[in-house]
Amino acid sequence: MTTEAKPSSRERLLEAAATLTYRDGVGIGVDALCKAAGVSKKSLYQLFGSKDELLAASLKEGAAAFVASLLPPADDGRSPRERILHVFEQVEVQAGVPGFRGCRYLAVQIELKDRRHPASRVARRIKRNLLSYFRAEAEQGGADDPDLLARQLIVVFDGVNARAGIGVDNLKGLIAPTVATLLDAADMR
Amino acid sequence: MTTEAKPSSRERLLEAAATLTYRDGVGIGVDALCKAAGVSKKSLYQLFGSKDELLAASLKEGAAAFVASLLPPADDGRSPRERILHVFEQVEVQAGVPGFRGCRYLAVQIELKDRRHPASRVARRIKRNLLSYFRAEAEQGGADDPDLLARQLIVVFDGVNARAGIGVDNLKGLIAPTVATLLDAADMR
Repeated sequence: MTTEAKPSSRERLLEAAATLTYRDGVGIGVDALCKAAGVSKKSLYQLFGSKDELLAASLKEGAAAFVASLLPPADDGRSPRERILHVFEQVEVQAGVPGFRGCRYLAVQIELKDRRHPASRVARRIKRNLLSYFRAEAEQGGADDPDLLARQLIVVFDGVNARAGIGVDNLKGLIAPTVATLLDAADMR
Repeated sequence: MTTEAKPSSRERLLEAAATLTYRDGVGIGVDALCKAAGVSKKSLYQLFGSKDELLAASLKEGAAAFVASLLPPADDGRSPRERILHVFEQVEVQAGVPGFRGCRYLAVQIELKDRRHPASRVARRIKRNLLSYFRAEAEQGGADDPDLLARQLIVVFDGVNARAGIGVDNLKGLIAPTVATLLDAADMR
């Protein structure tokens, strides 16, 4: 694609689904999605088969950006401890951006209820990769119990994202001491 | 009300709203609510004015049970530390019950998006009371920074509720060490 190319119907639908479900929830209607994308309903069904599959595809499409926005580059020379703290520093930055509503992959799973929904499956997989990242860094850093530490870190990740996302905590002065306490308790380098 | 009395239309609507929104989300339709309650739409609007107000009333109605299911009796003779741990022991028990979907007051706020929605306001108030409970016990127990500890505890509360509620963590072996680590770090008695 050249820089001149206009986004395709597929790209516009993915973008509309990502933006509108994050802002308004998974209950957003097909009409609203098509209107925002400037695409006919017929095109939506031809391209994705269903709204459910469009939601799943839009979450999958956003996974790389999600990872890039949170994780440091591989082998960046920093310690595993710093590489974990990096993720939480990004959360704190993101929470300060207008329109922030927390982790979209957590929200989608809470909203959909149905764990077999295609979008719920995609969201679960993406978050499992974040858990694996924490687990790998914890092991690398010599944590006493890498499994436990990784679960604790993703609980904090989901907890602070959720609370900042609904506007009940601004996270100031909260994340760094919390994560440091958990890393220290695990004897993490 | 005698033990023979049948639940009123109002009570049946409150119960239906609590059950169905917890299971299916806030997008549940007025028809489904009325059908489950065995009440006409006209009655719903006469009694509550709107679905939004019915949701808010059902959350408010459930607040006492929520508190009773989590908090120990006042002045039960246990230490503040034990009185905090009690809450989290209850969460672990609740998470093992079929149909558990996490904290309804967090879910409602995430699902509604609109922070001014009457049900969102009620949910926020109920959770603020839980934060206040943690804050008061933290202060009573001589925590170094009661505000920080209370915020950390409710982050863990929301994080573990959310993750168990979507079925990605069974909480086994997770909550007790996490909370103990935070209490220890705060020098909490």
